[in-house]
Amino acid sequence: MAKKSGADQRMAALVSLCKRRGFIFQSSEIYGGLNGCWDYGPLGVELKRNVKEAWWRDMVMRRTDVVGLDCSILMNPRTWEASGHVQSFTDPMVDCLQCKSRLRADQLENNQCPVCGTKDRFTEVRQFNLMFKTHVGALEDSSSVAYLRPETCQGIFVNFQNVLSSTRVKPPFGIAQIGKAFRNEINPRNFTFRSREFEQMEIEFFVKPDEAPQWFDHWKQTRYQWYLNYGIKKENLHLRDHEASELAHYAAGCVDIEYDFPFGRAELEGIANRTDYDLKRHSEFSKKDLSYSDPEAKQRYFPYVIEPSAGADRGTLAFLTDAYAEEAERTVMRFHPRLAPIKAAVFPLVNKDGMPEMAEKIFADIASEWNCFYDDKGAIGRRYRRQDEVGTPYCITIDGETGKSNVVTVRERDSMKQRHVGMTQLKEFLRERLSGEKEWEA
Amino acid sequence: MAKKSGADQRMAALVSLCKRRGFIFQSSEIYGGLNGCWDYGPLGVELKRNVKEAWWRDMVMRRTDVVGLDCSILMNPRTWEASGHVQSFTDPMVDCLQCKSRLRADQLENNQCPVCGTKDRFTEVRQFNLMFKTHVGALEDSSSVAYLRPETCQGIFVNFQNVLSSTRVKPPFGIAQIGKAFRNEINPRNFTFRSREFEQMEIEFFVKPDEAPQWFDHWKQTRYQWYLNYGIKKENLHLRDHEASELAHYAAGCVDIEYDFPFGRAELEGIANRTDYDLKRHSEFSKKDLSYSDPEAKQRYFPYVIEPSAGADRGTLAFLTDAYAEEAERTVMRFHPRLAPIKAAVFPLVNKDGMPEMAEKIFADIASEWNCFYDDKGAIGRRYRRQDEVGTPYCITIDGETGKSNVVTVRERDSMKQRHVGMTQLKEFLRERLSGEKEWEA
Repeated sequence: MAKKSGADQRMAALVSLCKRRGFIFQSSEIYGGLNGCWDYGPLGVELKRNVKEAWWRDMVMRRTDVVGLDCSILMNPRTWEASGHVQSFTDPMVDCLQCKSRLRADQLENNQCPVCGTKDRFTEVRQFNLMFKTHVGALEDSSSVAYLRPETCQGIFVNFQNVLSSTRVKPPFGIAQIGKAFRNEINPRNFTFRSREFEQMEIEFFVKPDEAPQWFDHWKQTRYQWYLNYGIKKENLHLRDHEASELAHYAAGCVDIEYDFPFGRAELEGIANRTDYDLKRHSEFSKKDLSYSDPEAKQRYFPYVIEPSAGADRGTLAFLTDAYAEEAERTVMRFHPRLAPIKAAVFPLVNKDGMPEMAEKIFADIASEWNCFYDDKGAIGRRYRRQDEVGTPYCITIDGETGKSNVVTVRERDSMKQRHVGMTQLKEFLRERLSGEKEWEA
Repeated sequence: MAKKSGADQRMAALVSLCKRRGFIFQSSEIYGGLNGCWDYGPLGVELKRNVKEAWWRDMVMRRTDVVGLDCSILMNPRTWEASGHVQSFTDPMVDCLQCKSRLRADQLENNQCPVCGTKDRFTEVRQFNLMFKTHVGALEDSSSVAYLRPETCQGIFVNFQNVLSSTRVKPPFGIAQIGKAFRNEINPRNFTFRSREFEQMEIEFFVKPDEAPQWFDHWKQTRYQWYLNYGIKKENLHLRDHEASELAHYAAGCVDIEYDFPFGRAELEGIANRTDYDLKRHSEFSKKDLSYSDPEAKQRYFPYVIEPSAGADRGTLAFLTDAYAEEAERTVMRFHPRLAPIKAAVFPLVNKDGMPEMAEKIFADIASEWNCFYDDKGAIGRRYRRQDEVGTPYCITIDGETGKSNVVTVRERDSMKQRHVGMTQLKEFLRERLSGEKEWEA
C-alpha cells in the first residue's frame, strides 16, 4: 500500500476523531450508507448549530439592513425554469458500451472507461440534470414533477415582493436564509465537503445598480473577516477573484473565499454580483412585476443583487480542520469559544467528601445557560484530555479546597493553565470569557 | 356566499395578518404556489427559530440524559423497508372512471365522485405510498431509488450504536433531533397544519423495558407542561389517550397533546411507547446487533423507546393562534417573551433634538443581544400598535426627558403601562424580564 502523505494522514485522523467522538457519521451507516449524505452526531450537531447561530446573529440580528426568511425545499417547478436550472443545471454523461457504466464525459482520460478499460466505445454525450426530481400529489406524470431545490436563493427571489410589502426594508437591504439544498452529484467526495445533501447560508443583498461595486466590496470584506473572527487562521484563508471565463453568464463578478483543507484549497463561500438577472427572469416567467419602486427618486428599477453564499457544512468542516491540532501530549481542538460544542466541563475531583454534591449544583447552575458536560470518571488528567480532544474551553474541578474556601479550579484549554475562581463569581467569569469580553488572564 | 362562523373569521384574520406582517407566505406564490408548502417570512422565521430553540434548550441542553443528532433527509432506502414504510405507509386510492380524478377511497361519500358526480364507477382500490420518491446517482432504476424521509425518528434508530459508542450515555437516555420530513398528503389543509413539507422535533428515549410506563408518564407530563410554560392557555390544551384500536401495531400506548385551533381540536404532538420494535427491526434488516449491553446487570437487551414527537410548524401555529387577540383598540399578539420575534422596539419620539442619536446608540447596544426593531416613523401610538400586532413585549421611547435625566420610557405590551428606566440599567432591566427572572412591575 502506498504510504499516505502528511495531509492524507491528517485528514484520516480528523475523520476518525469525528466518528469516534460523535461529530460526524456516515448517513444510515448500518445499511452501508448513502453516498454523499452525512449525519451530525451529538457533538457535531452542537458545533454546526453554533456555526449557523453565529452567522444568523452577525448577518441578520445585529444588522438593521438584513431580514431573515425560511422557504420550503419543494417549490413550484416553474421556479427552476425561470432560474435556468431545468435547462442548464447539467453534467455531460456517457455510457460505456462495453460495461454499461455511466460516466462523466468531461472526466474521461484518453477516452477510456475507468471501470472496464475499454477505449473509444461510448454513447453520445447526454446532458444529465443535477436536480433531484420527485412527484407531488397522487399522479406521477409531467404535471406533478417537483424538484428538491438545488440552491436556497431562488426562494428569496420569488418572495422579494412579499418581503417588501410586509416589512419596511428598501434597497440597500438583504434577505438571509439558512436551509438544505440538494444536488445529485455524480462523484461526492472529500468527506462532507462535496455532498448531495448540504446546507447553505445565503444572503441576497438588493442594491441600486450603480452601487453594486461598493456593496460587492463590502460583502467580500465582511465575509472574509467573519471566518477570521471565529478563529480560522489567516494563512489558511484566501480570496480568489473569478476569471471572466469562470463567471456564470448572469454574473458581473465573483470572488471565492477559499480554505486550505488537507485535500487541497477549496471554496467555502462565493460572493457574486448576480446583477438584475434573477428578478427580471422571475418577472418574465411569473408575469409579476418584481421591480422596486423608489418613492424618493420617483423611479422604478430592478435592483442588482450581491450574493454571499456560504456552505454551512463546508464552514463547519473548515472550523473542525483549523481547530484540530496534534501535540506531543494530546490532541486538541482549538475551537473559538462561541463555536465549541461544549463550553465547560465539571469534574468532582473524587466521588466523596461532598464533592459530587457541590459539582452537581455548579453543573445545574451553568448548564441552564450553556451546553456543559459532567464527568466524574477516571484520573483528572485523562478527563482534561477527553475535553481537549473535543475543544471544551474550560474545565472546572471541585476539589478539597472548594468545601473549605468556596473556590473551584478553572483550567483553560489552550494554555492548560489553572486558576482559582470563587463559586459565586464562576458564572460571570465564564460569561465574560465565552462572549470574548475578557481574556483568560484578565 | 355563506356567512363565516366566528372561528372561520378568526382563522381568516390570523392568516391575513400572517401574510401582511411577514409571518407566513404561500411557497413560490408568484407561480401559484405549491399545495402543502409554506414559507416563513422575516417575522415567522424568528418565531419558529425561537420555538425550536426553546425546545432544544429545554429538552437537550438543560438535561443530562438527552443528546442531539442531525441526520440527512435522504437515507439508504433499506431504512424504510425495515421501518415498514415502503410496504405500509399508504393511503387507499381509486380513480373515477368517468372524469379520471384520483381520490381517497376512504373519503368517498355514497360512492360518488366529488368532482363529476358520477356514482359507483371507480377503479379497484390501489395503495398509494405517501413517501416522496427520487433517484440518487446517474441511473434512474430501482437500484437508485431513495425517499425523502417521512419522519425524523428512523435516523435516530439507525444511529443508536454510533451514539452509544461515541458518548457515555446509557439507558435511560434520549436522542433528540429537529429536522424536515415530507409526506405526499393527498389533501393538505388548514394552513400550515397539514402540509407536505414540515419540520419535526423528536426525542427517542431509550429505557429498560420494565421502566417504560414510568418514562411514558414522565414525557407526557413534561411535554404537556412545556406548552403551558411558553404561554399556551390551559383551556386550549388537552391530553387524549389513544384507544387500543388507534394504536400503531408496534405501539404499547400513545397519548396526543391536542390544541383547540379555530378549525377544530387537533394534534400538536404524540407521545408513544414504541416498545423495542424499531431497534429489533433494524437489527434484523441490517444484520447489526442494536441491543444494549448493560455492564452492571451483565445482560444484553433491546431498550424500549418512549417517543415525544412534536411538529415545529404545528407548535408555531398554536403559539400564533393562542397569542392572537382582537381588542377594542388594537390587535395584539401575546407571545411569551422568549418566543416573540422582536424583543424590543426603539422609538425616538421625534427626529430632532438629539433623540435619533440617543435612540440609535441604545438600539445598537440592545440589538447586539436580542432581535430588536427601530422605528422613527409616525405617531407614537401608531408605532405601539404596529408592535402590538407582532407581539413585541417592550417598546422603548427616547423623549425630551432622556437627554436631561438619562431615562427612557419603557412600555409593556400586555398591560400597556409605562415606566421610566435609567439608560444604564436598561439592558439589565430587559434581560431580567425577557428571561422571566423578574416581572414587569418588579
